[in-house]
Amino acid sequence: MQSTMMDVPLSLNHLLERAGQLFAQNEIVSRLPDKSLRRHSFGAFYRRTRALASALRKLGLEKGDRVATLCWNHHAHLECYFGIPAAGGVMHTLNLRLSPDEIGWIAGDASDRFLVVDDVLLPLYRQFAHLHAFEKVIVFPFSGAAVPREFANYEALLDAADADAFEYAPHDENDPVAMCYTSGTTGRPKGVVYSHRSTVLHTLVASLGDFWGLRGTDVVLPVTPMFHANCWGMPYGAVMMGVKLVFPGPHLHPDDLLDLITQEPPTLALGVPTIWMGLIQTYDAAQGEASPNRGRWKLPHGMKSLVGGAAVPESLIRAFNKHGIWILQGWGMTETSPVCTISYPRAELRGADADERYRRAAMAGVPVPLVDLRVRGDDGTSQPWDGKSVGEIQVRGPFITGSYHEVPVAPDKFTADGWLRTGDVASVDSLGFVRITDRTKDLIKSGGEWISSVDLENAIMAHPAVAEAAVIAIPDEKWSERPLACVVLRPGREASPAELNAHLLKSGFAKWQAPERYEFIDAVPRTSTGKFWKVKLRERFPR
Amino acid sequence: MQSTMMDVPLSLNHLLERAGQLFAQNEIVSRLPDKSLRRHSFGAFYRRTRALASALRKLGLEKGDRVATLCWNHHAHLECYFGIPAAGGVMHTLNLRLSPDEIGWIAGDASDRFLVVDDVLLPLYRQFAHLHAFEKVIVFPFSGAAVPREFANYEALLDAADADAFEYAPHDENDPVAMCYTSGTTGRPKGVVYSHRSTVLHTLVASLGDFWGLRGTDVVLPVTPMFHANCWGMPYGAVMMGVKLVFPGPHLHPDDLLDLITQEPPTLALGVPTIWMGLIQTYDAAQGEASPNRGRWKLPHGMKSLVGGAAVPESLIRAFNKHGIWILQGWGMTETSPVCTISYPRAELRGADADERYRRAAMAGVPVPLVDLRVRGDDGTSQPWDGKSVGEIQVRGPFITGSYHEVPVAPDKFTADGWLRTGDVASVDSLGFVRITDRTKDLIKSGGEWISSVDLENAIMAHPAVAEAAVIAIPDEKWSERPLACVVLRPGREASPAELNAHLLKSGFAKWQAPERYEFIDAVPRTSTGKFWKVKLRERFPR
Ligand SMILES: Nc1ncnc2c1ncn2[C@@H]1O[C@H](COP(=O)(O)OP(=O)(O)OP(=O)(O)O)[C@@H](O)[C@H]1O
Ligand SMILES: Nc1ncnc2c1ncn2[C@@H]1O[C@H](COP(=O)(O)OP(=O)(O)OP(=O)(O)O)[C@@H](O)[C@H]1O
Ligand SMILES: [Mg+2]
Ligand SMILES: [Mg+2]
Repeated sequence: MQSTMMDVPLSLNHLLERAGQLFAQNEIVSRLPDKSLRRHSFGAFYRRTRALASALRKLGLEKGDRVATLCWNHHAHLECYFGIPAAGGVMHTLNLRLSPDEIGWIAGDASDRFLVVDDVLLPLYRQFAHLHAFEKVIVFPFSGAAVPREFANYEALLDAADADAFEYAPHDENDPVAMCYTSGTTGRPKGVVYSHRSTVLHTLVASLGDFWGLRGTDVVLPVTPMFHANCWGMPYGAVMMGVKLVFPGPHLHPDDLLDLITQEPPTLALGVPTIWMGLIQTYDAAQGEASPNRGRWKLPHGMKSLVGGAAVPESLIRAFNKHGIWILQGWGMTETSPVCTISYPRAELRGADADERYRRAAMAGVPVPLVDLRVRGDDGTSQPWDGKSVGEIQVRGPFITGSYHEVPVAPDKFTADGWLRTGDVASVDSLGFVRITDRTKDLIKSGGEWISSVDLENAIMAHPAVAEAAVIAIPDEKWSERPLACVVLRPGREASPAELNAHLLKSGFAKWQAPERYEFIDAVPRTSTGKFWKVKLRERFPR
Repeated sequence: MQSTMMDVPLSLNHLLERAGQLFAQNEIVSRLPDKSLRRHSFGAFYRRTRALASALRKLGLEKGDRVATLCWNHHAHLECYFGIPAAGGVMHTLNLRLSPDEIGWIAGDASDRFLVVDDVLLPLYRQFAHLHAFEKVIVFPFSGAAVPREFANYEALLDAADADAFEYAPHDENDPVAMCYTSGTTGRPKGVVYSHRSTVLHTLVASLGDFWGLRGTDVVLPVTPMFHANCWGMPYGAVMMGVKLVFPGPHLHPDDLLDLITQEPPTLALGVPTIWMGLIQTYDAAQGEASPNRGRWKLPHGMKSLVGGAAVPESLIRAFNKHGIWILQGWGMTETSPVCTISYPRAELRGADADERYRRAAMAGVPVPLVDLRVRGDDGTSQPWDGKSVGEIQVRGPFITGSYHEVPVAPDKFTADGWLRTGDVASVDSLGFVRITDRTKDLIKSGGEWISSVDLENAIMAHPAVAEAAVIAIPDEKWSERPLACVVLRPGREASPAELNAHLLKSGFAKWQAPERYEFIDAVPRTSTGKFWKVKLRERFPR
């Protein structure tokens, strides 16, 4: 027997059309380089996006061609999210925080044909222009300054295009729409290519009530860069549900974000832990009697904040909750679109006390629908979901990558039965809560036992004198490896290794797990997406 | 360029596995024939469902075979929703409110191989058993009575099965999982066959925040029969999000439902307008000083109620809202899985007054994601979304049927470019709100102008003396057709045709639109799914 259902492909074009029809009045706010706010309606977004698609086609864009973006978070970047695929192209977001050499290499690896770049980022572009020859460079006049003659002007292209006459190219749902490279925390970035199908499915799943819980009355502030795993997919969800969007542009300093939050209060914000850490410290400091910023900012009570990309310390969650803001932690990867697990208040925890709820919130959360997740031990068998047994997380699903762009599928990245090897080490408890204990590359093997660097870091960071801590393995003749803790102290505070180890023992660590060696450093080196960059620490402290 | 995403099919089996892993502790409550409540955990549901699948396979079920159900809403019916597809079968829900002849015809048309039937429904089964020979009849001992010897016992089959050893059959996402027949309001019921793909997509879309807004902390009461368009798809959503389910079993009398709601307060309930009309009348009557039921019931403040399947009168929405319950109206068809449009409080209406908000709530709502909707005039061109121009609604999307089971595709059901002709007449306004004015077959053409029977009915029902009103066309020599209003008066109330017409003129109708003829009847005949059965009225009042 056959199903009688229609064969209609999943398509981003459908979401764009829908937004144009239903949400024309809704607002998109962008912060410009001069810090003023620019307001667009979804109606304008719809017309401009179709104009962009039409213009790209006139420029000779062919199906599957890559169009790179080098942009901050703003309305024109959102237009690229939908306009490039509408024309049949593949949007490739370049990470403006990488070194010019890396950006150039990535543009070449992706064979990017066109580039859309913010005028304020032209100095960066010029540093890697010699590494990859784009056929056409389209400058978005974000600052309003005149666009240099040698480039195409984004606004002029849109003005000249006929949006009304534009017709979407027919496509298969497996056709590509976007491309993104991993952060390069553990090695050279690798390219992942998303399809209409994977993007629509991820959008539907992540938008569900317990996760993003998107509703048309929401106001969403994406601090996560739009070049970081497609801004976690939020732009697609926002357009699907017709929420109001508030884009911070290039202004990500805590003061700037707090100004923006005060002016355009969000109901939902998203970003990596570093951002929120800086923000809450600045906010709390401003409450002091003597602070010059006293009374300047207001955090919106009831706001939700999606935080992920790196472990979210429990202390951060508690600090925000004091102000009525609940942090939802997510775990995912560029490879996974990215949402794989989210920690949300489960019905089963209704009766739990506050400590228990914070403990869960500090975990990576439970797998979302359409994601199959298993944890494999060293011997290749699945670990029980007992909250103790650890192993490598492996995932499978329709929005998870099955290969990397132009990289042969290798057994260290994919299992023989087709699951993605995430390189993240975790345990899962009986309610399905995943707790990430490490990256496989960061695990410390001491005297035949594994020590979790993440557990040590979290415990050390809970000490009042510590601002940040990163733990790495150093070679040891007797134990094979031993932990070394790199610690950043809070301004004006002190703590000795002995004191920190006493604190660790009190927190439940065994003596052999505590690092006997500490290095006090000025700052933990971070990757372009705000993660601890342990590769750099290992270079600095090879033994 | 190719997407790098995995090729993983959408599957109900994934949702089942997920529920077993994450939600084992959650509860499913079923009301038994003796009115007692039976509690199951999702863990038990998971094991029993796999046991059912294993048992069906042992009985010789082969891929694509139809397994019919003739059951009330309860946990075992939910097991069929997932267990039959898990075994590779197609669940075919038989409508127990149809006549035995119709049920027998439908079972034959679907070539049902097995039947799962509630013991309390065996008398009904025996009335149509001669019309279709099921290979195996499996009786669910819902009442607890002994199962007659000639039938298989559902519980015994499950007990004998090895759930742990069960392995899902590999499948394509387009393979069928369920089948349902239309209500037969306008003619013989027609069969629609859903796939894994269509069901998962519909579940994701309908569960989104502005629509069902399902969260794990929800308690859902499905009053909508599980044989009516798959209970609007709610069982799939409930299992996906791990909500608590409360099934009313065979007890749908207002007193019974109010008892159940008081005992197990839902956060979300669903059913057709008739059910809620009876319920609110009973509840409001119980508030009277002299009522024997005073204090017996409590409506849960903040509950949402999904109502659809027929027009929802504004008066009903207002009546519930008085008690803090918000009604979300949906429009859809068996052919559309069924959710197509939902009326939810849009951000754009934030500033609107209460009247405006009620007016919108009484509309069918806006199209949900993945549904393309257009309104075609008599001349076949698309009507503008101006809130005035009417035409036939046509829809297209991955969970909308492209044909009927064993019926050749005909131009009165599907357009040449592959859209479903719904047979519903509507206008759409600039915000995308659909307002159903009629079925094509119920439109009244008077003097070359169309009169909406639904508009007349709603206006007449707003008169305080009127309980219900259904308007049909009668032939007229001069005007070709004229409206005839069939009116049910509230107990002890009176209203003359002249008075009702005066009321219509005050409500904004033109004189030529008002019916000069009224028939006062005892009850409006209803279809098996609670819709006005105008075919019957036309038989009774041919002129
Ligand atoms: N909530 C979280 N808790 C802990 N780690 C997280 C969390 N969310 C994400 N991560 C880490 O981020 C990784 C995914 O990051 P991303 O795709 O940006 O690139 P990367 O893994 O940092 O870089 P590369 O793969 O190039 O080395 C995950 O594999 C995980 O290690
Ligand atoms: N909110 C609503 N307002 C008005 N009408 C509705 C609403 N929801 C559903 N309907 C009506 O119900 C129809 C779908 O019902 P269903 O699929 O149960 O079978 P039917 O159309 O009544 O029967 P048949 O197709 O066999 O004649 C829609 O086409 C529409 O006419
Ligand atoms: Mg990685
Ligand atoms: Mg119909």
